Amino acid sequence: AAPADNVVVIGKKSVPDYVLEVILKFNEGIDEVVIKGRGQMISKAVDVYNALKSKLGDSLQLVSVNIDSDNIGGRLVSYIEIRVRRTI
Amino acid sequence: AAPADNVVVIGKKSVPDYVLEVILKFNEGIDEVVIKGRGQMISKAVDVYNALKSKLGDSLQLVSVNIDSDNIGGRLVSYIEIRVRRTI
Ligand SMILES: [Zn+2]
Repeated sequence: AAPADNVVVIGKKSVPDYVLEVILKFNEGIDEVVIKGRGQMISKAVDVYNALKSKLGDSLQLVSVNIDSDNIGGRLVSYIEIRVRRTI
Repeated sequence: AAPADNVVVIGKKSVPDYVLEVILKFNEGIDEVVIKGRGQMISKAVDVYNALKSKLGDSLQLVSVNIDSDNIGGRLVSYIEIRVRRTI
């Protein structure tokens, strides 16, 4: 698998769609998945994390939350990277 | 000071307004400030953190980032709590 295969970038699809994408990655054998959201998609990334936690319960572990910004054409664009692991 | 005096809750004001609120708290002698955003305000909370980091540079330390949800009338509302400290 390519290095970025463990990243789910949040966009216009629904929260349940992204929850499913993360679960499919776990089912492919990827042990840690990064949920990444930029700009206004940061809020939805946290929604995806919370919906995933509701669905998986104790088998979901929050590994880390990284917040920072990318300089895109001289403009700072905030992002969040939520790293999760399925433990069982 | 009351216990919640170190929390800045993000709402409709501008990012620079909230950056100033955090700096004013530091100047009052509060050493750690929590930037809290709920729902769509999560993205703006991260913008406030990044703008604050641009302004304060190495004197700003990111202590922790907490993501979770509150059950408000049976509905899960996501939130973020960004804890920062001024080190010098
Ligand atoms: Zn007080």
